[in-house]
Amino acid sequence: MRKDNVKIIIWGLGSMGKGMAELLLTKKGVDIVGAVARGEKIGKSMYEHLGMEKGNRKDVIMGSYEDIITEKAADVVLICTDSFTKDVFDKCKFVMEKKINVITTAEEMAYPQAQEPELSKKLDKIAKENGVTVLGTGINPGLIMDLLVITLTGACYDVEHIEAKRVNNLSPFGPAVMHEQGVGLTVKDFNEKNESGKLAGHVGFAESVNMITDALGWKLSDKVKLSKSPIVSNVYRKAPNAEVQAGDVAGVNMLGYGYVDGELKIEMIHPQQVEPQLEGVETGDYIKIKGNPDISMAINPEVPGGIGTIAMCVNMIPQVINSRPGLKTMIDLPVPRAIMGDMRDLIED
Amino acid sequence: MRKDNVKIIIWGLGSMGKGMAELLLTKKGVDIVGAVARGEKIGKSMYEHLGMEKGNRKDVIMGSYEDIITEKAADVVLICTDSFTKDVFDKCKFVMEKKINVITTAEEMAYPQAQEPELSKKLDKIAKENGVTVLGTGINPGLIMDLLVITLTGACYDVEHIEAKRVNNLSPFGPAVMHEQGVGLTVKDFNEKNESGKLAGHVGFAESVNMITDALGWKLSDKVKLSKSPIVSNVYRKAPNAEVQAGDVAGVNMLGYGYVDGELKIEMIHPQQVEPQLEGVETGDYIKIKGNPDISMAINPEVPGGIGTIAMCVNMIPQVINSRPGLKTMIDLPVPRAIMGDMRDLIED
Repeated sequence: MRKDNVKIIIWGLGSMGKGMAELLLTKKGVDIVGAVARGEKIGKSMYEHLGMEKGNRKDVIMGSYEDIITEKAADVVLICTDSFTKDVFDKCKFVMEKKINVITTAEEMAYPQAQEPELSKKLDKIAKENGVTVLGTGINPGLIMDLLVITLTGACYDVEHIEAKRVNNLSPFGPAVMHEQGVGLTVKDFNEKNESGKLAGHVGFAESVNMITDALGWKLSDKVKLSKSPIVSNVYRKAPNAEVQAGDVAGVNMLGYGYVDGELKIEMIHPQQVEPQLEGVETGDYIKIKGNPDISMAINPEVPGGIGTIAMCVNMIPQVINSRPGLKTMIDLPVPRAIMGDMRDLIED
Repeated sequence: MRKDNVKIIIWGLGSMGKGMAELLLTKKGVDIVGAVARGEKIGKSMYEHLGMEKGNRKDVIMGSYEDIITEKAADVVLICTDSFTKDVFDKCKFVMEKKINVITTAEEMAYPQAQEPELSKKLDKIAKENGVTVLGTGINPGLIMDLLVITLTGACYDVEHIEAKRVNNLSPFGPAVMHEQGVGLTVKDFNEKNESGKLAGHVGFAESVNMITDALGWKLSDKVKLSKSPIVSNVYRKAPNAEVQAGDVAGVNMLGYGYVDGELKIEMIHPQQVEPQLEGVETGDYIKIKGNPDISMAINPEVPGGIGTIAMCVNMIPQVINSRPGLKTMIDLPVPRAIMGDMRDLIED
C-alpha cells in the first residue's frame, strides 16, 4: 500500500468540479491539494467558496493554473472546464508537462481519436514523453452509451446491430444546460438556433460511436451522422430552471448513426427534456444488441448525468495513476468502480 | 499490426472447448494450432472429431498435453477442463512454464484469491517468472454477477447494498448439467444429495462476491455464505435432457451472501431450472445497487450461459496477450468486447 495520500488538483469549480471536490472529501486516502480558478476567486479559500466544511484539513487557496500546477504537485489534475478537445488541449498539455496525470470531463476527450486525430496523437506523445496518462471520461460519453455497450458485446459471438438509447430528465440541471438544449424555446426559435449551429445538444455521439467501432474492430465507412430535433411539448411543463408552454420545446431529441460498409450498424437515440413524466415518458438507459446472442438491457430510471460524471472522474483516479503512460480511453483501462475503501490501497507499486 | 496470426491451443473438447473452436474458426487473424485430448481421441483430427469443416486449413491432430504444449507453441492455451482452482492448477502451471498465456473456464479461477489464496500467489509467481498471464473468465463468474455489477458502481458516489440476480433456463444444457443441478430428482433425493455435498449447483458465488468487495475496497467480515434449495415444480416439465414430474425438482435455487463488518452488503440470487416459463417465471439478469445513486438494471432474457462463456474466453484473448504478466482477473484488464475485425489489430506491439 502506498503511504502518502493521493494528491488531486481540481481545475474549474463549476458544478462538475464542485461535485468532485465534495465527493473527494468523503473518500479516504486522498487529498485535494489545489484548485485552479479565475478572476476574483483567486486568493480565496476553496472551502469557503464552495460552502464546504474544511474541518481540520489544510486550507486550499484557489489560484491561477500557473501558480497551482507546478511540477509533480499532484498525482492527477481533474480538468472540468470544456467540452471540446481543441479547447482543453492546451490545459492537458500544460498539466502533463508538469509530470501530472489528467482526467477531464471534456466530452470529446472521451474518444478524441474520433474528431481530433491529430490532437490525439499529440496528446499521446506528450503523455508518453512525460510518463503520465490522460483520460477523458464521464457518464456519457464514458459509460452508458459506449463502455457499457462494449462490455455487453463481450458475451457475444458476433454483433449485427447496436441500439443505445438514453431517455433522461433535464429538470435537475441549471440554466446553462436549459439554454444549451433549447428548453423553453418556441419551435421556430429552436429551429433557427439549430440551423445556425448555436444549439449544443449532446456532445459525444461521434466519440461513443467511434469507441464502439474501434473496440469491436468495425471500420466506419462514413462520418457519424447526427440529427437534432425539438421535443415539442403537448402540455405545460415547469422545472426549477425552465418553463415550457404547450406547443413549445421541452428539450432536444438527438440521434446518431454509425455506418459500416454503408450499412447502418449503430443507432444512438438520446431524447433530453424537462419533466418527461408529464407526458408519460419513462426515463431510462437502454441497450439492444442484435447478434448472437441478442442482448436487451434496461436501466430504469436512467443513471443520473451529473452524479454519474462526477463519480466516473473520481472513480477512475486509481486506474489512471496505475496506467502505462499515454492517451487512454475507457476501453484501454480496467473498469470504473465505486471507491468505498482507502484510495491508497488501489494504487499499484 | 502484428503480422502472423494469433495462435491458440484448446485443452479439453467438451461443449465449451468445442464451442471455442467453432467460434475461433469464424474469426480473422487467429488460428487453432493445437488441441489437447485424452484416450482414443489422440491422433485423430480435431475437425473430424468435432464434425467441423476443415476447409483449406492445416489439420489439427489431437494429442496429449505433453506433445501439444511445447515452449511458445501458441500465444494462449484455452483450458476448458475443470471448475476448481486446485484441479486446474497443475495444467495452468504446465502451460505457463512453456511461456504461454492461459485463459480458463474454471469458475473458481475467475477470482482464485477468494478460496485459494496460496495457489493464487503461486500462479501469480509462476506467471511473472515466465512473462505470461493467466485469467479465469466466463459469463458467470466473469461478467453478469460481478464485472457488470462493479462497472455500474463506477457511476456511484457510494454503495450501500448490492443485489445480483440471475434467473436462467437450464433447458438447453446437457445431461451432465441436469445431474449437477439435481434436475428431475425427488425433493427427498435432492436434499440427501445436497446434504452429502454431491450437488454441484452454481460454482462462483465466493468468487463473484470477493471480486466485488476487493474492487470496491470493502473487507468481508465473514466467509461468503451459500445456500442451495430445490425449486419444486408445480407442473410437469420436459426439456431435451430432463423430465420433471409435478412435485419433483426442476432446478436449484442458489443464494449467496457477503457481509462487511457483520452487515449484509451483497446478495446473490441464482435460481436455475428447466422450462421456467411453464410457471410464469421470466428469465433475466438483474442488478440492484442501493447507493448514491440507486441503479436498477435488467437484461431480459438472461444472457445465455453457454454462448456467453465461450464468447468471453475467446473475446479476452487480446487483453490477455497485451497484459502485463501475472495472475489477472476481470477487474484488472480492459473490458471484453466482441471481436468483429482481425484479431491481430488488437494485439499491442
